[in-house]
Amino acid sequence: MPASAASIEVALSEAKSFVEAELEALLPAPVGPEAKLMTAMRYAVLGGGKRLRPFFVIESGSLFGVDRRSLGRAAAAIECVHIYSLVHDDLPAMDNDDLRHGHPTVHKAFDEATAILAGDALLTHAFAILAAADTHGDPFVRCELISRLAQAAGHGGMIGGQVMDLAFEGAKPAQHEIIRMQRMKTAALLAFSCEAGAILGKASQPLRNALVAFGQELGLAFQIVDDILDAEGDAGALGKAARKDAARGKATIVAEIGTERAKTQSQAMVKQAIRHLDLFGEKADLLRAAAEFVVSRKH
Amino acid sequence: MPASAASIEVALSEAKSFVEAELEALLPAPVGPEAKLMTAMRYAVLGGGKRLRPFFVIESGSLFGVDRRSLGRAAAAIECVHIYSLVHDDLPAMDNDDLRHGHPTVHKAFDEATAILAGDALLTHAFAILAAADTHGDPFVRCELISRLAQAAGHGGMIGGQVMDLAFEGAKPAQHEIIRMQRMKTAALLAFSCEAGAILGKASQPLRNALVAFGQELGLAFQIVDDILDAEGDAGALGKAARKDAARGKATIVAEIGTERAKTQSQAMVKQAIRHLDLFGEKADLLRAAAEFVVSRKH
Repeated sequence: MPASAASIEVALSEAKSFVEAELEALLPAPVGPEAKLMTAMRYAVLGGGKRLRPFFVIESGSLFGVDRRSLGRAAAAIECVHIYSLVHDDLPAMDNDDLRHGHPTVHKAFDEATAILAGDALLTHAFAILAAADTHGDPFVRCELISRLAQAAGHGGMIGGQVMDLAFEGAKPAQHEIIRMQRMKTAALLAFSCEAGAILGKASQPLRNALVAFGQELGLAFQIVDDILDAEGDAGALGKAARKDAARGKATIVAEIGTERAKTQSQAMVKQAIRHLDLFGEKADLLRAAAEFVVSRKH
Repeated sequence: MPASAASIEVALSEAKSFVEAELEALLPAPVGPEAKLMTAMRYAVLGGGKRLRPFFVIESGSLFGVDRRSLGRAAAAIECVHIYSLVHDDLPAMDNDDLRHGHPTVHKAFDEATAILAGDALLTHAFAILAAADTHGDPFVRCELISRLAQAAGHGGMIGGQVMDLAFEGAKPAQHEIIRMQRMKTAALLAFSCEAGAILGKASQPLRNALVAFGQELGLAFQIVDDILDAEGDAGALGKAARKDAARGKATIVAEIGTERAKTQSQAMVKQAIRHLDLFGEKADLLRAAAEFVVSRKH
């Protein structure tokens, strides 16, 4: 039985509450003359967001019966990495954004030095969380999570993609270059979120690969939808400035092929993504429905 | 027989060559539209430096017969973390430095966005290096290295110390607050460098603790010497601007008690540091002599 939109909203909302409680517990308390750092870390992390990456960690891990504590910690670590990337991307030297989730960005609410350092501290903390024995009893599993996270988030993944994104501003990259950039900038961490559940569950390589492939395709579709929303943008609903991509000459699929064709393409990509889950049968119905849901979002 | 100054210089120079070859091999090659990122990472890392942290990894590991490959990788990872911290500290929003090791800082040679992202990528890469099986066959050891590195470099260590350092500018913190700041900002990573050898060598807890204590005291002494050199500063010899601390109203021990008393204090701290090595007998002679040597440096 396919999952209904209502049941997906419930699952997303449950994952959000669960990981937010976990983050609240795992983030350091603000104390001492350095309290501003921890306050900024908490401000950045606890200020909102859909918590999609945590949702995919939890749902993919649930396919293999992974326990809640492991899922919560891995989900929190990945969310810390996602948030650090937003904090740094928002800086004046990068996208220079004043608003995120309807609140002032970290460098606006605090200052630039604090934003840089809070981002650094969140990235570092993510690895501390994953390395701790509480995340999984088997240190091979913990090392595998760390290794793959570092790849997804590093020069060959998210950071490399961000550098390409900046390099492409005002340029005319080919469509395959834009796709490669978005595969690195956005899809790599989403794919790792899906893979993390498989790693924690010591899944067989084919099942793990299927989740990675699902996450990769979904990540690309997700990025296109993000770009469509920016192009059609309503800042109030988005909680951040809209129509920024065009203003900055960002290279996006939407800029390349237009909004309507981009919509069609994102739908096709989601179908493609979901096909990778065939191996799991109906156990993956919620993941499939969530993928459709996420890409049909309006903000 | 105490190690001579000449033999220490040889040992330091050998460690430097060894870790630089390792870094050269471990850093990604610049390719693709994101090549600027890798070029900046290499520029930051391979542009010089005394490689003191790698030296202490190698020497402490040698006490336990740790193999060269493990030492090289752990040393390279720690150096990546040290360098990332310099790249971010040099940014306009923080110390705003134009010169490092006699060359333009990364944001001067490239741009601010690239400096932020290259720092992020170096930090991420350090964890990738440590998590890989090549670093040590036992994943418990790798997780322990990652866990302790994240603590030493994170909000409770180096980054927390940097936030305190910025908060203390123009303020009048008590001496114990300056000491705590420097313990976090500088000594934590140096102490971890010494501890890393013990972790790799699966040393007993008392021996491991002794190396941590040695690194902590030495790190404090080292920071005082750094501040004295800044105060007495010769930019040519330092390869960076001098007398910056006073100009910025930085809180340092030198500013608190004056250069002469600070010299005496740093000498006393080194003696204190060395005493922690009593457990090792003459096997630690080179470490002892290196500690004395490092703190007697003139640039």
